[in-house]
Amino acid sequence: DPIAPIDPGEAEDFLRQCYLENPRLGPVEPRLAIVRAQIAATGSYVHTTEELSYGAKMAWRNSSRCIGRLYWRSLVVLDRRRARTADEIFSLLVHHLQAAGGGQEGGKIRPVISIFAAAQPGQPYAKLWNEQLVRYAGYRRDGDVVGDPRQADFTAAMEGFGWRGKGDAFDILPLAVEVPGEPVRLYELPERAVLEVPVTHPEFGWFAELGLRWHAVPAISNMRLTIGGVNYPLAPFNGWYMGSEIGARNFADADRYNLLPTVAERMGLDTSSESTLWRDRALVELNRAVLWSFEKAGVRISDHHTESQRFMSHLRNEEKAGRQVPADWTWIVPPISGGITPVFHRYYAEMDLRPNFYPNEHACPYAQN
Amino acid sequence: DPIAPIDPGEAEDFLRQCYLENPRLGPVEPRLAIVRAQIAATGSYVHTTEELSYGAKMAWRNSSRCIGRLYWRSLVVLDRRRARTADEIFSLLVHHLQAAGGGQEGGKIRPVISIFAAAQPGQPYAKLWNEQLVRYAGYRRDGDVVGDPRQADFTAAMEGFGWRGKGDAFDILPLAVEVPGEPVRLYELPERAVLEVPVTHPEFGWFAELGLRWHAVPAISNMRLTIGGVNYPLAPFNGWYMGSEIGARNFADADRYNLLPTVAERMGLDTSSESTLWRDRALVELNRAVLWSFEKAGVRISDHHTESQRFMSHLRNEEKAGRQVPADWTWIVPPISGGITPVFHRYYAEMDLRPNFYPNEHACPYAQN
Ligand code: HEM
Ligand code: HEM
Repeated sequence: DPIAPIDPGEAEDFLRQCYLENPRLGPVEPRLAIVRAQIAATGSYVHTTEELSYGAKMAWRNSSRCIGRLYWRSLVVLDRRRARTADEIFSLLVHHLQAAGGGQEGGKIRPVISIFAAAQPGQPYAKLWNEQLVRYAGYRRDGDVVGDPRQADFTAAMEGFGWRGKGDAFDILPLAVEVPGEPVRLYELPERAVLEVPVTHPEFGWFAELGLRWHAVPAISNMRLTIGGVNYPLAPFNGWYMGSEIGARNFADADRYNLLPTVAERMGLDTSSESTLWRDRALVELNRAVLWSFEKAGVRISDHHTESQRFMSHLRNEEKAGRQVPADWTWIVPPISGGITPVFHRYYAEMDLRPNFYPNEHACPYAQN
Repeated sequence: DPIAPIDPGEAEDFLRQCYLENPRLGPVEPRLAIVRAQIAATGSYVHTTEELSYGAKMAWRNSSRCIGRLYWRSLVVLDRRRARTADEIFSLLVHHLQAAGGGQEGGKIRPVISIFAAAQPGQPYAKLWNEQLVRYAGYRRDGDVVGDPRQADFTAAMEGFGWRGKGDAFDILPLAVEVPGEPVRLYELPERAVLEVPVTHPEFGWFAELGLRWHAVPAISNMRLTIGGVNYPLAPFNGWYMGSEIGARNFADADRYNLLPTVAERMGLDTSSESTLWRDRALVELNRAVLWSFEKAGVRISDHHTESQRFMSHLRNEEKAGRQVPADWTWIVPPISGGITPVFHRYYAEMDLRPNFYPNEHACPYAQN
């Protein structure tokens, strides 16, 4: 519950660890005294810029589902705690996409988090209804869906508020910002804020005819960041894409774009029996196309082999630092060719360490999963 | 510990469930009285043929790592509890392979288990050192291994006992049988007992030149079967292969036959960068070759899509029967194309139900993993 009172023990644990890992911040005891007094007086406390920044990095480091944690120290933390109006929030979200390298002229994607105001005990807080800053609409049409079926409920909700998309397979959804005491407001992302990559294939000319594209930046906006007992319900973050997220899930899942049958047909594969492995063959080509297209467009992306190797390095680094790495095997192992990635061949500690990110169940009345 | 005293509670739990699921066995109470008396008098008890048979099926049904459980009722149970000498045991193992359809003239693979004598509290018991009935030797040669590296220790041990293999990549290991009070004895499997499939590719003619082959039957022989508190340390069982066990693990793992670089080179793939997905492409072709070759040879095998669908049916069946299905996601999801199999998209109950199979740590002084 993001608006529960602050747990002083969690605050203390965080501060001790933060100051221990960052000797340049000085001794923790004086800071603890201040924080205790703040909590006693106000029910909460305010992070310094440095605590906020390092806390966000720790939250990434503790994200047991994330394979991309090697570069956790490099997270760019944008302190947006003073933004209050929907207009302010929207314009800072646009800024986030550009800072992340995900706008027009971009491509050099950097991990960024924008941290908006902390929830105050018992108080309402600003919400973004979208699950990611950039997502494609899904329109229900005669029992089928045009676009991303995962967004069909959300899209219908936006239409209920008067939004009208073009009705194509890759229409960017508006951002739905709701600040306390006001009705939700919808904002169109400006073109300059959204870099997209048309998906073609290194060998199959017909691939371009499928008309596929994807956005450059995965910016998750429906998770609550918690640092030392303080909850930040609006704290969108992004890394760069691992190709399989697009090629093996968004494009391939039967309840998403479901492209394997189409690709297999175009490839002329024998789909009369599963044992021809036509699905697997189409899947690999779909993933090649994604990686190749992003690389050609100069948009940072990585493949699941490279990210797996990086994660192995991360495990070694953290072991050297004397820290355990909480990890969820079922999320870490990529959805394609799992067995030939090094992350497959071991088990991991499953622990719920804080700071961390948690699903923001209350953020959106039209949640996508 | 296979030679611990019998737990009468476990015996009772098993018998109640067994008789409940099999009304034709009659009321359980009289049987319970007999078993309690047997345990009190001898420290153990003896399963009826029907208890043994149904108990083995339940053990399969409870194997949380096994995707192949849809056909658990069809398990053929061979009661070998009276075999005592190494010669007897060996000849019954040969019979097992033939009954499973894995001998020459075979191909119609059936799930079979051979159950040898139960361990008696405090007593030594017969052991088979091999992890599977059919496995290929691995010979250490100048820092490299010819054959299956997983069997290198075991192979060296066999050589220590005077065994000499041809030194090829697919030499079938001898069976090492150890009965109480006697030194271990080595037996060569006769040709008629071992069906093998040469691996070729539906399109790549050069594939045959790699000289690959694999045996028809995976018969695991290093697990202890436990039924109602009684331990059967020697109870080898087999199903048919799911192709990915061979194509995505035995042939592909870097510490097994490690064939991806070879296949990729023959395919002429660009291996200069991971993002060309050359590993994934070679992996799919390796798996196509395995499935195609087994099918062409008339040896039963199944692909990971089909087994995943069967497992989904199994989940539905068991739900209808009011039973939970213990399952380990990390083993159930296939090592290739995980995300596009239906088993990927849900979680499972993780429970340790009995009867079941457990690793037999003490069986082999040269354990393979
Ligand atoms: C730098 C490049 C990054 C890569 C390649 C990467 C990769 C991934 C992948 C592949 C997943 C699984 C996604 C899925 O299957 O839906 C994931 C999940 C996750 N990542 Fe990362 N990540 C990166 C950066 C970040 C950053 C900057 C953060 C936070 C500051 C983060 C936090 C998370 C969290 C919380 C999840 C779990 C999401 C959920 O539960 O739905 N990651 N990451
Ligand atoms: C009928 C066809 C069968 C298929 C397709 C099948 C499939 C599989 C697969 C793919 C695995 C994972 C193997 C690995 O990754 O190493 C597995 C594991 C297992 N299966 Fe099955 N299976 C079958 C029959 C059986 C039978 C007859 C039994 C026992 C009576 C059985 C018991 C087990 C057990 C205990 C494991 C775990 C082995 C371990 O822990 O190493 N399976 N099965």
